[in-house]
Amino acid sequence: MSRLIKPASRVAGQRKDVWSIVNEAAAASEKPVVNLGQGFFGYNPPDFVVDAAKEAVERVDCNQYAPTQGRLRLRQAVSDAYSPYFGRTLNPADEIVVTTGANEGMLSVFMGFIEPGDEVIVMEPYFDQYISNIEMAGGKVVYVSLHPPAKGDTEVCAASEWTLDQKQLEAAVTEKTKMIVLNTPHNPIGKVFTKEELQGIGELCVKNNIIILSDEVYDRLFYTPFTRIATLSPEIEDLTITVGSAGKNFYCTGWRVGWLIGKPHLIQYAGAAHTRICFSSVSPLQEAVAIGLEKADKEGFWETSKKEMKEKMNRFNEIWHELGLPYTEPDGGYFVLVNLSKVKIPEGYEFPPHVAERPRDFQLCWFLIKELGVAAIPPTEFYTPQHEKEAENYMRFAVCKEDHVLEAAKDRLRGLKKYM
Amino acid sequence: MSRLIKPASRVAGQRKDVWSIVNEAAAASEKPVVNLGQGFFGYNPPDFVVDAAKEAVERVDCNQYAPTQGRLRLRQAVSDAYSPYFGRTLNPADEIVVTTGANEGMLSVFMGFIEPGDEVIVMEPYFDQYISNIEMAGGKVVYVSLHPPAKGDTEVCAASEWTLDQKQLEAAVTEKTKMIVLNTPHNPIGKVFTKEELQGIGELCVKNNIIILSDEVYDRLFYTPFTRIATLSPEIEDLTITVGSAGKNFYCTGWRVGWLIGKPHLIQYAGAAHTRICFSSVSPLQEAVAIGLEKADKEGFWETSKKEMKEKMNRFNEIWHELGLPYTEPDGGYFVLVNLSKVKIPEGYEFPPHVAERPRDFQLCWFLIKELGVAAIPPTEFYTPQHEKEAENYMRFAVCKEDHVLEAAKDRLRGLKKYM
Repeated sequence: MSRLIKPASRVAGQRKDVWSIVNEAAAASEKPVVNLGQGFFGYNPPDFVVDAAKEAVERVDCNQYAPTQGRLRLRQAVSDAYSPYFGRTLNPADEIVVTTGANEGMLSVFMGFIEPGDEVIVMEPYFDQYISNIEMAGGKVVYVSLHPPAKGDTEVCAASEWTLDQKQLEAAVTEKTKMIVLNTPHNPIGKVFTKEELQGIGELCVKNNIIILSDEVYDRLFYTPFTRIATLSPEIEDLTITVGSAGKNFYCTGWRVGWLIGKPHLIQYAGAAHTRICFSSVSPLQEAVAIGLEKADKEGFWETSKKEMKEKMNRFNEIWHELGLPYTEPDGGYFVLVNLSKVKIPEGYEFPPHVAERPRDFQLCWFLIKELGVAAIPPTEFYTPQHEKEAENYMRFAVCKEDHVLEAAKDRLRGLKKYM
Repeated sequence: MSRLIKPASRVAGQRKDVWSIVNEAAAASEKPVVNLGQGFFGYNPPDFVVDAAKEAVERVDCNQYAPTQGRLRLRQAVSDAYSPYFGRTLNPADEIVVTTGANEGMLSVFMGFIEPGDEVIVMEPYFDQYISNIEMAGGKVVYVSLHPPAKGDTEVCAASEWTLDQKQLEAAVTEKTKMIVLNTPHNPIGKVFTKEELQGIGELCVKNNIIILSDEVYDRLFYTPFTRIATLSPEIEDLTITVGSAGKNFYCTGWRVGWLIGKPHLIQYAGAAHTRICFSSVSPLQEAVAIGLEKADKEGFWETSKKEMKEKMNRFNEIWHELGLPYTEPDGGYFVLVNLSKVKIPEGYEFPPHVAERPRDFQLCWFLIKELGVAAIPPTEFYTPQHEKEAENYMRFAVCKEDHVLEAAKDRLRGLKKYM
């Protein structure tokens, strides 16, 4: 190129992201890697959802543009599925918008409400897309930590022992605070926020007129009572947009179907932004998801799904007991955070520069791929530099994989013994 | 709601868009409306594409996250399909990115390159999403007119008679001009820019280092020689991102699969923005589109597609000859612009306020729906207020519908006789 074409600063000069590092390391590995890294499912959606998709792609109306706010059948199905939890009938016409995955749904909320200079409170560790999405709207991220349990290096802990300091949260609120992002069940901790915690957050938001963006994409996978913050009071509901994901609910992360639920004064602007971002979302798979939601209860799918995931979690975590490595017992979702402070990387072990310059968990991650053939995610990717020390001994494993894959991972992880 | 929650200015206070006006008017109509408004197809994708989709939703790898830059098979298929036109081998690794429809692809380009204050040249009439997408990135739109033929009120004209004044284009370039948006074949005019026109635009961009975003989503539907601006010279190619659409190519506007083609120094930033906007695009339908591109030539699909659309165009346009109403004969795409200056709306005819306040084409649109039961799109929606006079007698009809629908529309449009 003869002359410089400058990219926008919002995409310029970013460091290599964790997904690229892990995927490239895995691809370069000599023996095939057992991948417990990215949170995609190692198996298909249930037959009643796949069959619905196959029928949908044969229908003219399903193959053409969906309404920008989502196919009516899906909005109705979301209403039918969620109204019982919300204790009132959600209006499909103006309280639900279908988005291109939960990700684009959250971006739509940021674009719908955040002006340059507005502050958005995000808890560390966070899902990495939050940050770029908030910044794309011109927002400034203000971080509040979820503190790991003090005994995390030595003992198995409950996810509930990762705690939010309500005083720190209050201190983070300023006149510019426009929104807070919640995530429950939480990725990567597996924490399900208690009703009391949510009450504290909700009341603070009501007091300060802060919009609550509640990312509840793992809402069908909880192993302890699960509370939706929108249901705590009418005042809190007036401020809350709840995010849902067909990809997480029905094992189809590649379908890009999600939704937002909230009062019309919130949904209308998120929906307007969504229309400008993607125009409309994938139509035939919306129809399939609608049918999935309609049938899920009758099929007993939610109970089976939760039971099977909990069994996978238990099956996989046996290895940590065997190795004597402490982990955080998840209360929800399909990730497990394991504390590898006891693992000693041999002195002088060589890392490529883009791994050597990152915290110890990136080096552990590289080491696990190269020496054991198991890929996992280093969680400091989900931290700001000033707090990454807190997580540098942890590693995130996704258990939403077939049982034989989990067993293969366990076999390989036994190789850690000689490094302890 | 007790207190005001202010939306971001980028989504606040927008007037009712044309799609809502037309769809609501159509829905409120007593007799079912023949809808030639929005450009969705009235029929299914070809069997070899539908079958591929049905197979894809049965595959685990197709149901989970696609790579953020697109499934490799689709990027390879785009390379194989487009390299012959580009006269060189397009590298699937870094010269192609798959996006969530062409729309999100264009947003990704704006987000990847436009900083607040940068200027983007757009031709009037324009596809409406361009404007909000440019503004979302902080860009300022600078408009240049495609002038209608002077005899458009009285005679059938060629789409090529809608002309760009190269001097006006040059005058629109400032130090802040970062990008120009081209659209060929053009919606709604049906104009296919000539090689000479594109050469003039391209050289101006090279001289001023302006990125060319060439929206070529109707690239398989041209009835006159079609030139891709990227292929005119290496210098022009260095500045050009070409936009493609599976929805337009394979009759599946609801699938949300599109792509961007360009040199790595352009694609990398559009791809980075895309990752932040949608993370990845719908995976199983990417696979189906890949298979579609692989098979299309062998199936003779492109030739059939073009021939059938041209036949639909001819079939439909018979009515204008019969009525003596002039139209613009399209050189590409599936829209026809008809000049209704001869149609007299009865004096005192009542319009709702949101129609009465808009130019005459909105009133003609309303009148067509209510009195004749035919929906079409008023093109001043695609104009700024200072230029909308130029298009106030035109109406855009989409002919990508089944033949019996086109015949039904013609039958109803005969009712125009008594208003002329």
